[in-house]
Amino acid sequence: MISSSIFNDLVARIAEAGRSLALGTQATAGDPLALCERLLSGKGEATGLAIAQQVFDAYGGLDPESRQGFFRQVSERFGVDDGALEKAVETWRQEGSTAARALHFASEPRSQELIRRLNRAPGGTKALVDMRADLIDAVAEDATLQQLDTDFQHLLASWFNRGFLELRRIDWSTPAAILEKIIAYEAVHEIAGWDDLRRRVAAPDRRLYGFFHPALSDDPLIFVEVALTAALPDAIRPILAEDREPLEPGKATTAVFYSISNCQKGLRSISFGNFLIKQVVEELRREFDGLTTFVTLSPVPGLRRWAEREAEDEEGLLGPEQRTRVALLNKDDPAVVDDELLELAAVYLLQARGRRGGALDPVARFHLGNGARLERINAAADLSERGRANAWGVMVNYLYDLKSIEKNHEAYANDGSIAASTAVQRLARSSKRSSVHV
Amino acid sequence: MISSSIFNDLVARIAEAGRSLALGTQATAGDPLALCERLLSGKGEATGLAIAQQVFDAYGGLDPESRQGFFRQVSERFGVDDGALEKAVETWRQEGSTAARALHFASEPRSQELIRRLNRAPGGTKALVDMRADLIDAVAEDATLQQLDTDFQHLLASWFNRGFLELRRIDWSTPAAILEKIIAYEAVHEIAGWDDLRRRVAAPDRRLYGFFHPALSDDPLIFVEVALTAALPDAIRPILAEDREPLEPGKATTAVFYSISNCQKGLRSISFGNFLIKQVVEELRREFDGLTTFVTLSPVPGLRRWAEREAEDEEGLLGPEQRTRVALLNKDDPAVVDDELLELAAVYLLQARGRRGGALDPVARFHLGNGARLERINAAADLSERGRANAWGVMVNYLYDLKSIEKNHEAYANDGSIAASTAVQRLARSSKRSSVHV
Amino acid sequence: MISSSIFNDLVARIAEAGRSLALGTQATAGDPLALCERLLSGKGEATGLAIAQQVFDAYGGLDPESRQGFFRQVSERFGVDDGALEKAVETWRQEGSTAARALHFASEPRSQELIRRLNRAPGGTKALVDMRADLIDAVAEDATLQQLDTDFQHLLASWFNRGFLELRRIDWSTPAAILEKIIAYEAVHEIAGWDDLRRRVAAPDRRLYGFFHPALSDDPLIFVEVALTAALPDAIRPILAEDREPLEPGKATTAVFYSISNCQKGLRSISFGNFLIKQVVEELRREFDGLTTFVTLSPVPGLRRWAEREAEDEEGLLGPEQRTRVALLNKDDPAVVDDELLELAAVYLLQARGRRGGALDPVARFHLGNGARLERINAAADLSERGRANAWGVMVNYLYDLKSIEKNHEAYANDGSIAASTAVQRLARSSKRSSVHV
Amino acid sequence: MISSSIFNDLVARIAEAGRSLALGTQATAGDPLALCERLLSGKGEATGLAIAQQVFDAYGGLDPESRQGFFRQVSERFGVDDGALEKAVETWRQEGSTAARALHFASEPRSQELIRRLNRAPGGTKALVDMRADLIDAVAEDATLQQLDTDFQHLLASWFNRGFLELRRIDWSTPAAILEKIIAYEAVHEIAGWDDLRRRVAAPDRRLYGFFHPALSDDPLIFVEVALTAALPDAIRPILAEDREPLEPGKATTAVFYSISNCQKGLRSISFGNFLIKQVVEELRREFDGLTTFVTLSPVPGLRRWAEREAEDEEGLLGPEQRTRVALLNKDDPAVVDDELLELAAVYLLQARGRRGGALDPVARFHLGNGARLERINAAADLSERGRANAWGVMVNYLYDLKSIEKNHEAYANDGSIAASTAVQRLARSSKRSSVHV
Repeated sequence: MISSSIFNDLVARIAEAGRSLALGTQATAGDPLALCERLLSGKGEATGLAIAQQVFDAYGGLDPESRQGFFRQVSERFGVDDGALEKAVETWRQEGSTAARALHFASEPRSQELIRRLNRAPGGTKALVDMRADLIDAVAEDATLQQLDTDFQHLLASWFNRGFLELRRIDWSTPAAILEKIIAYEAVHEIAGWDDLRRRVAAPDRRLYGFFHPALSDDPLIFVEVALTAALPDAIRPILAEDREPLEPGKATTAVFYSISNCQKGLRSISFGNFLIKQVVEELRREFDGLTTFVTLSPVPGLRRWAEREAEDEEGLLGPEQRTRVALLNKDDPAVVDDELLELAAVYLLQARGRRGGALDPVARFHLGNGARLERINAAADLSERGRANAWGVMVNYLYDLKSIEKNHEAYANDGSIAASTAVQRLARSSKRSSVHV
Repeated sequence: MISSSIFNDLVARIAEAGRSLALGTQATAGDPLALCERLLSGKGEATGLAIAQQVFDAYGGLDPESRQGFFRQVSERFGVDDGALEKAVETWRQEGSTAARALHFASEPRSQELIRRLNRAPGGTKALVDMRADLIDAVAEDATLQQLDTDFQHLLASWFNRGFLELRRIDWSTPAAILEKIIAYEAVHEIAGWDDLRRRVAAPDRRLYGFFHPALSDDPLIFVEVALTAALPDAIRPILAEDREPLEPGKATTAVFYSISNCQKGLRSISFGNFLIKQVVEELRREFDGLTTFVTLSPVPGLRRWAEREAEDEEGLLGPEQRTRVALLNKDDPAVVDDELLELAAVYLLQARGRRGGALDPVARFHLGNGARLERINAAADLSERGRANAWGVMVNYLYDLKSIEKNHEAYANDGSIAASTAVQRLARSSKRSSVHV
Repeated sequence: MISSSIFNDLVARIAEAGRSLALGTQATAGDPLALCERLLSGKGEATGLAIAQQVFDAYGGLDPESRQGFFRQVSERFGVDDGALEKAVETWRQEGSTAARALHFASEPRSQELIRRLNRAPGGTKALVDMRADLIDAVAEDATLQQLDTDFQHLLASWFNRGFLELRRIDWSTPAAILEKIIAYEAVHEIAGWDDLRRRVAAPDRRLYGFFHPALSDDPLIFVEVALTAALPDAIRPILAEDREPLEPGKATTAVFYSISNCQKGLRSISFGNFLIKQVVEELRREFDGLTTFVTLSPVPGLRRWAEREAEDEEGLLGPEQRTRVALLNKDDPAVVDDELLELAAVYLLQARGRRGGALDPVARFHLGNGARLERINAAADLSERGRANAWGVMVNYLYDLKSIEKNHEAYANDGSIAASTAVQRLARSSKRSSVHV
Repeated sequence: MISSSIFNDLVARIAEAGRSLALGTQATAGDPLALCERLLSGKGEATGLAIAQQVFDAYGGLDPESRQGFFRQVSERFGVDDGALEKAVETWRQEGSTAARALHFASEPRSQELIRRLNRAPGGTKALVDMRADLIDAVAEDATLQQLDTDFQHLLASWFNRGFLELRRIDWSTPAAILEKIIAYEAVHEIAGWDDLRRRVAAPDRRLYGFFHPALSDDPLIFVEVALTAALPDAIRPILAEDREPLEPGKATTAVFYSISNCQKGLRSISFGNFLIKQVVEELRREFDGLTTFVTLSPVPGLRRWAEREAEDEEGLLGPEQRTRVALLNKDDPAVVDDELLELAAVYLLQARGRRGGALDPVARFHLGNGARLERINAAADLSERGRANAWGVMVNYLYDLKSIEKNHEAYANDGSIAASTAVQRLARSSKRSSVHV
């Protein structure tokens, strides 16, 4: 909205500002760190938008190594004001908890205000999300950057609060600029091109919904793909098949969430999926009277890796027979029947736990944390290369039953109890121990 | 967007939750404090939206006194976690500044997370803005609530970051629901009804622009009214006159900002005006080639009160003759000529300073802080009751000259130097001392 | 859309074109007739848009008398091509009905192509509608213009075909520019200003719908006002009352069409009301499950005038006692009880017929022609000055019952049978003769 | 907009209506002709929309042969009312030209009113356009249907009047549903898929504009593709190349119209191209200050066919040497130099005339009729199979020069004079005769 002309006027003056810090070879593109100092030091806001824009331009000219250097310097220079903090701690020592809030504000790192001022530039929010995507990579190389990442994450989580998100249906009347991002972002079952996309958004028994933020209006944050079916699905192929007959939506009883994809790497660890699923359930209930069942068809990404590890561990969750089975499965030995594979999967999903006591499988952790129930495990459900490599083709249905979501969620949150159907529980009964709740 | 049906399902369960805290007589409406506890304690988000909604409903049922009680208890109960803070301070003592960021996050009062979770409800942002309007009143009664208000202000300032605001032109094709708010919110020169509004937004030589936030899409945050004229205006009446001849916009040389109104009491101290004026300047420059001058026609709200005080003070800024003049002005004595009144105003605007060294007059402080120049002082410019009561009818033109905004702003920010035209400086020359910069 | 620059280029050339016909004193504004000739004679379309625009500009500069002269000349000059018609008749005589279509096209008056070419100008459709409004006035003065009016009406009816109309709900989020037209156009129960309008469009139990044409997107063609109520209404005041309590819409059983207004004089005799009512019935049924009854509350504009005439006519529809009653009613004599007034109205509505056999009352004719049933007649229902002057305060409910609309419509269309409730039929039973069908 | 429920109510009754005419084997789908009779005979409009919908449904169920039968019967049954016409002719004989307009209306074939009533159905306009596309095929088989086609064409031309069309830019933010139609409709230089489309609409130096009608809002009527370049283009490949460097639009001097496609077969003979080009010229002039030249890069579809015919004709436009050249060109004989090919093309474009005296080449006829000038002929400009097959690779630039459009158009319309650059005229000078105007 802000036109470039006012920026041009200002850029001339900004260019005169000293460039005290060399960050490599990008001297010509402006020194982003010096610009950041200038942005923060300005007592007023006269030229703030222009300087923020300059920071993004200068940053854009940096190579990955220089970006890492930039992050390091931002983290160091724009930290907490030690003197102010010292004083605030002193006051808090004397006055007690009434001074704790003041201590909080006194200890805010300057990087947070920097990020807020950068956000003022046109397109600033998207630029910050992309900057954090770089920062995530940089943290992997240099753990000390974790602190700066916490600042980014804190502010982005606040700005991408559920209250600011907008649910939109994506269909064939959606602008191509958004649809092409859906193709690019789909992370679970790849979209093969525009024809495949058309089948997923334009067929009468298909839906695709995404969350959008007003400041990134052409860029989805997360989206979910839905198939309307007449029964609980036990495999992905029939859902994606090119030549399938669409179901008349009025006859659908079941809404299947068969793919959920996060779109913005820079928003990692900021969670939208739970809200998205629940709001889409609402939308679908309102549109189709006949829907009674809301269920996922989900991958089990960690099954095989876990089983292979367990196969080596005599003290683990698997019995000797089950451990043998793992090797046979890896050889595609037809001696292993489906039920034996399902049993293995049931043990994994119900008993294998992460460090904090939740389900080990990340997809299971997500849906169980949302209050869903582990409804059914399906063999030969995803025969793609990835489906076989990760889980010997197994997929799972998690059921979203509005009446028990709350209870399931609380039980899982309180003591890790996993809601599962009787059939799934029975599959796991031969295992050594169990923490299944009914 | 979230429909009420899922809420209804959940409300039944929520209603069973104990109500441990009585806040007065509104027992039937639900106990907002208990709901807040529940909202914060929930390990997951299964029913978060519903509980947030419940909090607003319950809060809405409280009378003003109970609201103050509610704020007091929120402030006390949802403060900083003392234990965690103690530990973080300890670590910081040992590890030094690398632990300062952790200290900051450890000292975040729980009220901030509470506010963030409340924001998730549909309409939550507007509800929080309105809640803060109540809180501002409550602070006036009970200064200890200032701390909670700081939490609100901190988050609202972050959420209403310039980067999230949208500039919109308000005209006669704007929905009535928004226009009626413009009528209600206009704070400087009252809008007498729909006909008056029509003149201000639909005449070819009039413009009205506002900032909007996506979460309050029908509710302006601030707006500015603009008149396109052929010369610097010296009075408000010709601008608002019912029967005036509109100027052909192509012939305009001057854009006059004759009224700026903040709309949301709950956003007090969060400043948008500077950004608004500068962006509107851009919009107008783009639309009308002929515009060369961007200027305000502003009130001088503190002139008379200041002068009456100075008249009593022999050690003040006014000489004896000037002090006498104040009483004559209060009697409408025709012996005081315009130039004598203007001289008094010039002394006030250029020399009277607030505690922090800025201009004493709040309107002057705003425009000078933005980098504008005090261009002209006009007598008999606002003969309304308020104009006479506050400033004996004086109004001021502040000039927004893009080429000198930056310099003016910095000089004012650094040492309080006020940019003023030669004519205004000359008016103040007879006064005792001066800090005018040229 | 078309910018003015290309017009400016062309206007210079057009100005050189001769002005052979003087239409009065508006020589300076361009001669619309000469421009029309030029518009029609152009073999191509190179400058057609510009010339069409010129015609409207020139026409706009004419005074009413000159407009009448303009219409007269258009009618004469741009009539049927006599030679071509003569030839086509000849061919038709020889070849018979296969040549009839060719005869039709050969006899098209040139005024039709002129109107089509004028329509191409930006805003041309609205300009033509307004031109026809003038023409309707001119016809009243000069019946020979009826022929030209038939051309206008023919083309406008074709262009305002139901298939091109868009139903829109008008509410408080509608642009003020449209709302102000609703205030101006309301023809049945005057809207007293913006507050009154707000009550009619923004109350939860009120609706207002209009038909729009894409070429007049800010200008309604016709609109209907609806009240949602819990019972059949028997008076207009409670519906329009300022201080009434709104009904919760979910509790409404009845939708009352209490006002229908045509907006464009230039579209006279082109009928939209039937389509509008039926589509609004659909909209309301979809939105509110509880609605079972769709009914009007309608004026009886011709009752009193008819009764006064009948009172003089011993051979008419009224008996001697009824005839006496008319004079008493005109004196507000309390001796006339409601039932006697209702009886008079029933005779009028069921038995008084126009020249073509339809109901004499225009409002009755409209609703009965749509297939509605005369459900109830109400005394003291409209005590406004107009309501008393036209119908001694009587109003009528016409019932739109989807199941019988078709049957009612056909019966009325075939032999003039009027569908009426038993109660209304009984009211009329004492009259001399009856053509009521059950 | 109209929901299906009201239709369902009505369909039951409609189904009872007799089906007097069998049109083949589609008895179950309803008899469209009987429904048409019913639609026309209805004295009111009670169920008109539903019946119109039924006609389209029934028609949709017919096979091509039955459709032809349907058209034949519509043409015969819904012709002119012979009795009324006879009477009108009689009156006209007696009263003269004042009765000519009445004669016109009396001779309107009933098929026109039928088409108007069909248009009222939701989606009726598009259904009628598609019906006419069938009719065009049917006319090719049965010339007697030409009369009915004239009715369709007459009404569609009136409804698709320039005044009702909307110019829209098509870009990458356009809904996929529209973009996929652009891919399908492109008739000149085929679009190879979504990536090719993206290059044509999303590159900074490319534009695509189309005309839309409000009743077909997702379906373009005609579109034009534009390239912004720095010079007059002499070949199509560089414009369509995948790997080309886009030009910064601010540096463009020339807008090249390199493809114009009509989209709706059912609108054949209703011309939009002239209006489209001229409005796009306006749009581009407004957006880009630097544009000075508006020019096409057009095929010469009839060149080769004409030349081959001329080569056989000693009395034709070509000299002996030129005639020999044709055979050499067909053998790709390198002995023919470019200038000799261009000379042949110049003779074709400037001298070969159709029956009515216009240019023989249809593309030339279109642009010359619009007032464009034949600016340059380019050899080796379109080396695609079609380009070689039709014109040995020749393409032409027609120049749209606003200052001479009017003059060129009139000269061409009056006496067939063709505006051409000196260079093109020189090319044709060796030919036997010439009608070139300077």
